Amino acid sequence: MKNYKIVIQYDGTKYKGWQIQNNTSDTIQGKLEDILEKLSGSHVDVIGSGRTDAGVHAIGQVANFHINLQQTMSADDIMNYINEYLPQDIAVISIEEVDERFHARFSAVSKTYMYRIHVGRIPDVFSVKYVYPFTDGPLDTSAMREAAKLLIGTKDYKAFFGNKHMKKSTVRTIFSIDIIEKYYKDEVSEIDIIYKGDGFLQNMVRILTGTLIEVGMCRKSVDDIDSILASLDRENAGFMAPSRGLSLIEVEY
Amino acid sequence: MKNYKIVIQYDGTKYKGWQIQNNTSDTIQGKLEDILEKLSGSHVDVIGSGRTDAGVHAIGQVANFHINLQQTMSADDIMNYINEYLPQDIAVISIEEVDERFHARFSAVSKTYMYRIHVGRIPDVFSVKYVYPFTDGPLDTSAMREAAKLLIGTKDYKAFFGNKHMKKSTVRTIFSIDIIEKYYKDEVSEIDIIYKGDGFLQNMVRILTGTLIEVGMCRKSVDDIDSILASLDRENAGFMAPSRGLSLIEVEY
Repeated sequence: MKNYKIVIQYDGTKYKGWQIQNNTSDTIQGKLEDILEKLSGSHVDVIGSGRTDAGVHAIGQVANFHINLQQTMSADDIMNYINEYLPQDIAVISIEEVDERFHARFSAVSKTYMYRIHVGRIPDVFSVKYVYPFTDGPLDTSAMREAAKLLIGTKDYKAFFGNKHMKKSTVRTIFSIDIIEKYYKDEVSEIDIIYKGDGFLQNMVRILTGTLIEVGMCRKSVDDIDSILASLDRENAGFMAPSRGLSLIEVEY
Repeated sequence: MKNYKIVIQYDGTKYKGWQIQNNTSDTIQGKLEDILEKLSGSHVDVIGSGRTDAGVHAIGQVANFHINLQQTMSADDIMNYINEYLPQDIAVISIEEVDERFHARFSAVSKTYMYRIHVGRIPDVFSVKYVYPFTDGPLDTSAMREAAKLLIGTKDYKAFFGNKHMKKSTVRTIFSIDIIEKYYKDEVSEIDIIYKGDGFLQNMVRILTGTLIEVGMCRKSVDDIDSILASLDRENAGFMAPSRGLSLIEVEY
């Protein structure tokens, strides 16, 4: 039994997210498990670093799986086999054999997500599937940066959590939130928000983003952030930004 | 009557190319003319720098149109109006009023096309619509570069021309053909061929690319290039590379 760590890229547009549901064919995990079962002859659990929501993309999702093969195959052979059967919007971009104790979720130290907001007047036809086209006026990125500072740290993010019924701890640590403006002809065309933390709750990055956008629109003020956090109430945070703008960039171990 | 020059980007995947055919809704020119007719109340000819084939993309296609508007609109207002009605895979990225004699086709001095060949073992899920996935073994880029040198200059490119029945001159000038290798983890993942010339015949860039690929596969030799050119016979050139890998990058005036 060998344990393999893989890095996966996907365009999540057509999928119901990472985690397998009833039907295997519409999730990334399901696609991978189907192929590995075909390869090994028995069911293989593919453990992701975490779930990504329906429609969210990944540039560097990480997973691991334990597999016992009859035939002799190098790690590269396994990667090539998987890629041969994956649809063209999912790819394994690297593979390595790892210690049997490596666990993609439990061993993860930090995760980096990027949320892309297209704000320019001119649409970007080549990244249209990967950005949230925001058309309700300019965003005040200075205010967004001030608000972002207040969201960093080890805090209870229950107000930014999409699942009301989960009983586990909603305390997480956000290491950094960087806001980058991209320009086209002297005008801001895209605002990217890059979140790095030890882990994120369900929908958390999207609700953080919606809240920061509302600060940028002056619908919420920078001063609201502390009271939103303290309230622990989802109703007080901003809207949930659409999944299409979100990508999981990297998982660090 | 004012004359406007526009730069247009499009993902050509869903379209039957630039030039209007019977149905206006499946070509780029048709989409633009429909919108400008709605704006001005009468038909507006949109003159492209040249046709792009069905499925070919553009990062910098150029066109011009003469329009007479009842209402006062700045050039930017016109661009914003067009973009509001264009589908999300087509966008006007700049507009300027130009001299009445400016003609997007006749005034063009040179054009730059890029052909992207994905050769890596690992698919690139985010550019899958814009590359030709080539899987028949490695390509000898040294030989391709030697062959490319022989294709540069002012020559009769009839052998690289998709339309047998056209009677006009098939002499064109290619200024440069650059072959760029992109790497992923020490392996070549993509080969881009960048063509710059004073104009290209129908299908010419795709046939040049297919011929260079055949040289890279050792199906044709560098020495074959001169005899292919001299033959003036399409049968002697290589296959026509698929349209999805081709983008019109820039038109210079």
